[in-house]
Amino acid sequence: MIGGRRPLQGRKAGDRRVRVERPYAAFFRYAGPGRLVAREAASVPRTPAGRALARARAVLFGRPLSIHEEIDERLPKKKALAIFSSDPISSSAYATEEILRVLVLAGTGALLLSLPIAAAIALLLAVVSTSYRQIGHAYPSGGGAYAVARANLPRLSALVAAGALLVDYIMTVAVSTASAVEQITSAVPELFDVRIGVGIAAIVLITLGNLRGIRESGNIFAVPTYLFVGSALLMIGLGVFRIVVLGEHAAAPSPLPGAPDPLQPVGLLLIIRAFASGSVALTGTEAIANGVPAFKPPESRNAATTLTAVAILLAVLFIGITFVANAFGLVAVDEPVKRTVISQVAAVVYGDGSIGFYLFQAFTALILFLAANTSYNAFPRLAAILARDGYMPRQFSFRGDRLAFTLGIVILSAVAIGLLVVFRGDTHALIPLYSVGVFVSFTISQGGMVVHWLRERSAGWGWRMAINGFGCALTAVVAVVVTIAKAPESLLVAVVIPLLVLMMLFIHRQYAASAAKLAVDPQATIPAPRREERVVVPVPGINRAVIQAVNVGRSIARDVVAVLISDEPEEAARIRHQWERQLPDVPLVVVESPYRALVGPLLAYLEVLDQAWPPDKEAPITFVVIPEYVARSWWERLLYNQSAKRLRTALLGRQHTVVVGVPYRRDDVEGVEPVSRPAA
Amino acid sequence: MIGGRRPLQGRKAGDRRVRVERPYAAFFRYAGPGRLVAREAASVPRTPAGRALARARAVLFGRPLSIHEEIDERLPKKKALAIFSSDPISSSAYATEEILRVLVLAGTGALLLSLPIAAAIALLLAVVSTSYRQIGHAYPSGGGAYAVARANLPRLSALVAAGALLVDYIMTVAVSTASAVEQITSAVPELFDVRIGVGIAAIVLITLGNLRGIRESGNIFAVPTYLFVGSALLMIGLGVFRIVVLGEHAAAPSPLPGAPDPLQPVGLLLIIRAFASGSVALTGTEAIANGVPAFKPPESRNAATTLTAVAILLAVLFIGITFVANAFGLVAVDEPVKRTVISQVAAVVYGDGSIGFYLFQAFTALILFLAANTSYNAFPRLAAILARDGYMPRQFSFRGDRLAFTLGIVILSAVAIGLLVVFRGDTHALIPLYSVGVFVSFTISQGGMVVHWLRERSAGWGWRMAINGFGCALTAVVAVVVTIAKAPESLLVAVVIPLLVLMMLFIHRQYAASAAKLAVDPQATIPAPRREERVVVPVPGINRAVIQAVNVGRSIARDVVAVLISDEPEEAARIRHQWERQLPDVPLVVVESPYRALVGPLLAYLEVLDQAWPPDKEAPITFVVIPEYVARSWWERLLYNQSAKRLRTALLGRQHTVVVGVPYRRDDVEGVEPVSRPAA
Repeated sequence: MIGGRRPLQGRKAGDRRVRVERPYAAFFRYAGPGRLVAREAASVPRTPAGRALARARAVLFGRPLSIHEEIDERLPKKKALAIFSSDPISSSAYATEEILRVLVLAGTGALLLSLPIAAAIALLLAVVSTSYRQIGHAYPSGGGAYAVARANLPRLSALVAAGALLVDYIMTVAVSTASAVEQITSAVPELFDVRIGVGIAAIVLITLGNLRGIRESGNIFAVPTYLFVGSALLMIGLGVFRIVVLGEHAAAPSPLPGAPDPLQPVGLLLIIRAFASGSVALTGTEAIANGVPAFKPPESRNAATTLTAVAILLAVLFIGITFVANAFGLVAVDEPVKRTVISQVAAVVYGDGSIGFYLFQAFTALILFLAANTSYNAFPRLAAILARDGYMPRQFSFRGDRLAFTLGIVILSAVAIGLLVVFRGDTHALIPLYSVGVFVSFTISQGGMVVHWLRERSAGWGWRMAINGFGCALTAVVAVVVTIAKAPESLLVAVVIPLLVLMMLFIHRQYAASAAKLAVDPQATIPAPRREERVVVPVPGINRAVIQAVNVGRSIARDVVAVLISDEPEEAARIRHQWERQLPDVPLVVVESPYRALVGPLLAYLEVLDQAWPPDKEAPITFVVIPEYVARSWWERLLYNQSAKRLRTALLGRQHTVVVGVPYRRDDVEGVEPVSRPAA
Repeated sequence: MIGGRRPLQGRKAGDRRVRVERPYAAFFRYAGPGRLVAREAASVPRTPAGRALARARAVLFGRPLSIHEEIDERLPKKKALAIFSSDPISSSAYATEEILRVLVLAGTGALLLSLPIAAAIALLLAVVSTSYRQIGHAYPSGGGAYAVARANLPRLSALVAAGALLVDYIMTVAVSTASAVEQITSAVPELFDVRIGVGIAAIVLITLGNLRGIRESGNIFAVPTYLFVGSALLMIGLGVFRIVVLGEHAAAPSPLPGAPDPLQPVGLLLIIRAFASGSVALTGTEAIANGVPAFKPPESRNAATTLTAVAILLAVLFIGITFVANAFGLVAVDEPVKRTVISQVAAVVYGDGSIGFYLFQAFTALILFLAANTSYNAFPRLAAILARDGYMPRQFSFRGDRLAFTLGIVILSAVAIGLLVVFRGDTHALIPLYSVGVFVSFTISQGGMVVHWLRERSAGWGWRMAINGFGCALTAVVAVVVTIAKAPESLLVAVVIPLLVLMMLFIHRQYAASAAKLAVDPQATIPAPRREERVVVPVPGINRAVIQAVNVGRSIARDVVAVLISDEPEEAARIRHQWERQLPDVPLVVVESPYRALVGPLLAYLEVLDQAWPPDKEAPITFVVIPEYVARSWWERLLYNQSAKRLRTALLGRQHTVVVGVPYRRDDVEGVEPVSRPAA
């Protein structure tokens, strides 16, 4: 039985020729009384145009995936390392440079400080990643900082975390893409002038890849990550060998014009600022904990192992690159075209212009693009969680054909492209916007974990809480330091996050208010309505579309009246004459409209009908039936339905009024059966 | 009785407290059984926002006018002269210059030929205006060339005339505005760089004026026309006095650099080209004959008198300005900024920089703006006639509140502004596009009149036909001459007019095909349908909006089924449990959608219902009832109705399916009565 208590009409008609024995079998699996499970065929478009579109989409984005296939989309550790590590590891491509850009202001002598600063940041990384391992275990369903804060902290903290994460994910795309393009232009300076175009093209490609779904992302992206890690480790190894064993080092770099004396003492403030700049190395650490559900079971354990591996790799790369850059006295070059520090390290170690150099630059650019890709898993997922919780518009939780949260992906790309254009593709200009949000979300998530352990008090809760508490305190300090040290750019984020929180609160209030207003007493049994219905059909004359509409009206209720609004009394009289002959059962009211208006007189007529209803009787529901042409092209939309559109708009939301659109096509008045064939 | 045969419910309820004795009296006048005449109140918006909008519109555009008031909008001769004469008379502001611009190519000696050429054009004007007097008499309902051709010539000629007229009206706006701005910049050269902005601002102002309606147009525009005519006649008189009586004249103008020797003989070709250029003086002559219905009765006679007066005035101004310009040896100056010939005449006669000069320039600019305004009467009227004949989209015949054909006015302005921008506001560059269409429509309308007299053979048909025949032949020759002499620019119009004709034929075929397909045998009596109905309500859960939709469904038919499409089986089970307790009469079908799709499974379910229907029985009509949130702001449109929109789009045009949108508001589920108050 389909349809709950009622037998489906086709099934009792077993003695007649029924097309399909179980008509639902092609589309549905029967799962009990009134319960069907849709098969893939149920989602196949019904029209030739729709099917063509779906085929095109399948070529571009792959075939649709069922929820039961999603488990197959989960990532083994090696693949997950490739996908999630690209974000944290790739920050080694620009973190060293950010430290050096600050220190160089104090003269070339200060550059040597980069190594202890990098070491300090690596320590911070150790604390944060240890802290995050515990989050992955405690909250295996993903959502990261937001999920932890929602479970343990006041709502506002959770929303601040959500806002910070949304900003982060966007900044990850913008910064990583900008840096990737800078790696490319460091190797091929001719592309410098079209760098923004290259960046946009890359984001568009990544977007298309992600609209195809997560499985392809893994396959496409696994190899280059390992290539980057391998070649970067080789580069560091070769560099260290040349420095330590061969004793090579750079001549003391010549002081930059306008830079302070190289022997000038370096202030604490500058060291703090360099630390704040370099802390961008930690961005992406949270990605793995947030992405636990994408791991193969056992999810949390696999994620934790991956996280530790990634943290160690990142620390080695970051310190190694800083060490080699230091030894060779490298700083970022901005003129005539920008050359990144890591590209200079590669030039020194592999030889400028060598195949090794170009390959390394290509691998670096690739892993940075992969890092951008990380956000395409995280951002739409978080937006969907927020949408399910009522903090984002509901359409963020609609899934596209490929289990991808289409809308989130598209918005992420659009904002990132906008940032790329506004900041002219300059990584260094974008980074101040990046770190603040990262450390805010670190702080909140670990603060949430402290509360979690306090409540939970499971085995080892004491030292677990201590770890998270220490991480929380440390990252809170860093968040404040970064915000102050990177002002004024960092303040932009400090404004955007509260704005996002306000927006989410506003949306939530809207949905909550709707739900409250629409709520029904759950104990009440709701009776069938007892009221009369009447049908009003505005007609321009007599044709098959009108007759179809009138007949739909007669299907709805017995009280059907047709209304002809006309500014030509003679024409109206002619139509009335014909009407009374052809549709004698349906009364026609002619409303002469000397003001030539159509909508006003109809509304007035409906109002008159309502007024005539005695106030102590329940007002009847008025169905206004409007024939609507089914346009097949843009010019048909211009030629038809203009009046129908105006009527529908005017009637929307009128009390006790329901608009019924009866579709018709020119070639065949279908939708409802044709009533009468034309005479000729 | 309202509502035809059926007594209105309120009237039989005389023993109860009925709010209004005759409820329709506020909105309608009772005009017989089933016949109402709408009062102005019937068009008044019902909502506070709508009323506020209507008030704002009334301030900007004036209050709405009834069809019965239109007669009061008609123009007495003096006002009609002001409105319709501005188009033909204003061409004297640039026609002389167009002749001189051609002749100066043959050297300054050739400039003297401008006077006989102007005289020849004045003769042509006499022939055309005599011919057009007869059109005004024979076709007093307006429409001009199109109306005459439609009545007498094959359809294609009528459409060519219509296309030519549409182009003309647009060019009138563009050329007149461009020339008006040039008159302003001739007096205030500082404005030259912002001339396009000035032109656009002028067109926008004219558009607003015309959206107010015709009466205001007359009042605003009557005075300046007479000011221009008066001051131009004074200028010519003073100039002729100084030339003839005082014997003043210019030193022979110095030959322009690169110009041929002044004594070189002037070729016939150049004379013909100068004639073709100057024939732009005739533009606008047809406006009066086309505008006959706007005259006070006796319309045709008043129009004819006005036409003759205008033709004489134009001839005097054109020849006079050419004579004075000649005597003082004036030619158009383009460097450093453009100075028009007529502004130089004014500078010589009134004194450069004198108050008289500035006033005359202001009057000239004003009458040119009035000329642009002429098209705002003619273009929308013609578009509306074409729309009623099925050659333009129907919305061109919708009337705005002020009897103005809003859409036509807006399109006219948009295209004219586009031309102004593309041609950088240069009158001389625009004029080649102008004359061709004018003479094509002259030729067709007079050709139509020849056929008219042949058919009619009323008193004096012989000499009347001779006049029109001579006019037709003459203007045909001029049309060909202008097209060749003004090539290649003129060929653009020769392409646009056929394109317009093709578009009109295409639109007509669409509407005709629709009408034929939708036609009903006029003898057939149409019976009430005998078929079953069923109602499907897609529901997301239970709330008041859903209950309201279900109850509307129960009002429509007895076979109502609710369909819940869900990707969360536990949630679905919970809803089913609640549903069976609260709405025990309405079966609920749960469709699990592992692909997370919403639309596909619903369509599949509808298909299953259809397949179950035995093929030898008439398929039932399926009403799909969708709750639709009535959004009050742009962000509500983002937050609500996304699913409803997707369902509606997918269901549009499905066979035997009618979508019923049940509106609800958050604050109060109205539209249909609330069923149950929320518990809390």
